[in-house]
Amino acid sequence: MDIKAYFSKKADVINKALDSYLSDKEPEILNKAMRYSVFAGGKRLRPVLMMAACEAFGGKSEDVLPFACAMEMIHTYSLIHDDLPAMDNDDLRRGIPTNHKVFGEDMAILAGDGLLSLAFETMADALMKYSDRRYIKAFKAIAAAAGTRGMVAGQTVDVISEGKEVDSKTLEYIHINKTSAMIRGAIEAGAYIAGAKDEDVKKLALAGEKTGLAFQIQDDILDVESTQEVLGKPVMSDIKNEKKTFVSMYGVEYSKNKVAEYSEQAIGIIDSLDCDGEVLKAIVSYLTDRKY
Amino acid sequence: MDIKAYFSKKADVINKALDSYLSDKEPEILNKAMRYSVFAGGKRLRPVLMMAACEAFGGKSEDVLPFACAMEMIHTYSLIHDDLPAMDNDDLRRGIPTNHKVFGEDMAILAGDGLLSLAFETMADALMKYSDRRYIKAFKAIAAAAGTRGMVAGQTVDVISEGKEVDSKTLEYIHINKTSAMIRGAIEAGAYIAGAKDEDVKKLALAGEKTGLAFQIQDDILDVESTQEVLGKPVMSDIKNEKKTFVSMYGVEYSKNKVAEYSEQAIGIIDSLDCDGEVLKAIVSYLTDRKY
Repeated sequence: MDIKAYFSKKADVINKALDSYLSDKEPEILNKAMRYSVFAGGKRLRPVLMMAACEAFGGKSEDVLPFACAMEMIHTYSLIHDDLPAMDNDDLRRGIPTNHKVFGEDMAILAGDGLLSLAFETMADALMKYSDRRYIKAFKAIAAAAGTRGMVAGQTVDVISEGKEVDSKTLEYIHINKTSAMIRGAIEAGAYIAGAKDEDVKKLALAGEKTGLAFQIQDDILDVESTQEVLGKPVMSDIKNEKKTFVSMYGVEYSKNKVAEYSEQAIGIIDSLDCDGEVLKAIVSYLTDRKY
Repeated sequence: MDIKAYFSKKADVINKALDSYLSDKEPEILNKAMRYSVFAGGKRLRPVLMMAACEAFGGKSEDVLPFACAMEMIHTYSLIHDDLPAMDNDDLRRGIPTNHKVFGEDMAILAGDGLLSLAFETMADALMKYSDRRYIKAFKAIAAAAGTRGMVAGQTVDVISEGKEVDSKTLEYIHINKTSAMIRGAIEAGAYIAGAKDEDVKKLALAGEKTGLAFQIQDDILDVESTQEVLGKPVMSDIKNEKKTFVSMYGVEYSKNKVAEYSEQAIGIIDSLDCDGEVLKAIVSYLTDRKY
């Protein structure tokens, strides 16, 4: 199957919906700042994964739309806050200046807060329309992924580990929480909305976790093997920031093997489930094979 | 009635629940930073108002507990982010150093993000238990109050107005969104959970808005009339920060009349509703009469 075409088709739908969710004209500067980062050219990985997981269990991808957009808003807020001077202090993201470089630190903090809030308001609106328990489960999966036992926990340990010696256990903790949690949450939410059984979602969640690990290590490989032109952000940033990565710990070859191993595990789990997992598997392969 | 005793009794219940919601031990520094600000001695105004609104319409205050705690987490996150150097740059809050002064800017940003996320996860857990539509309406009211058409909008306009000439319309916009929205949201959520009719909640919301306006103007009066010892934060801060307030625009006497007017309007609305509004009215009087 043509996974690039699939991605592009789904991303169009997601972008249109995001455009309408971010249509408030007031306060103008807040809206501009939020839109700037949301429409800075993200891959829409998490929303597309949510749609694919929903379809794998017989659901319609339109049904996940508010939740998929919420996930992208949460992902975007996390990037805006991560880039802040007090955090990673990054000037470039996706080839363009980071949010605080354009709108100032105060507005970047508020744009992040605004996107996280809007994500939850978007889900609240969806629950007002569809109060079926499947949607509540999706909401719960997304909240857990984003929260203090998920992404925020990972980011915290990442921040306090900078410049320090970290062991492989800590590094895995960071990856699982900072990166995998949201990928896992997206897949869980999609499967729940399709009406998948709890036990199947639990297994699928593990596939999401493995995919997230593979995705993160691939990111770290690209940081040393790619160029700024291709990635849209400075390369060798992990070395510059004294950030421990799988690559700096174990080298590129071992890391490449790990990417292959994790993605095979994810695919194996998907294969073991009673669902139509072709697209999901194609996405996993595509992600872990990518060059940018 | 002894409104101070009511406040203190309800605050105890809320504090115990907050303690259990904030019981995660990992990551330790994140938990510490979040707890530091949550347990820095807030009045628990919004949670107590939620309980009182719920009781006014015949509900049990225990029923609102997860939502009341979520509201307090959201309120606390907003204070942590507001105090940041890039925002109001405040060193003291409730008589003790602000979050970023103790934990650093990076951790203060994450503690705020963590509390906002935990608020929504707490509500998601509650919806998993009680999926009744009343709770979904409460969730929606809280999300709207906190969001880009509520508190974040108010904070945005507040930030961009600093040091500028603002007109009375803009000032009212800031107050209604930055302060009233969360007070209104708390009351709406409480009434919804009690099963109040939509039309009654709509009227009550307006009482919440008036209460918020009275509360904010009273805050601004105390900033010029009280002392740091009594308030736990520096006085004359609005003048120092060149912040336009009702007091700086219209003087203390006019502002005091406005506080009285708004609180009377709020009490009038509560009186007009078919509910047992004695406690709610006592809280409005207590808030707008306060000396700290």
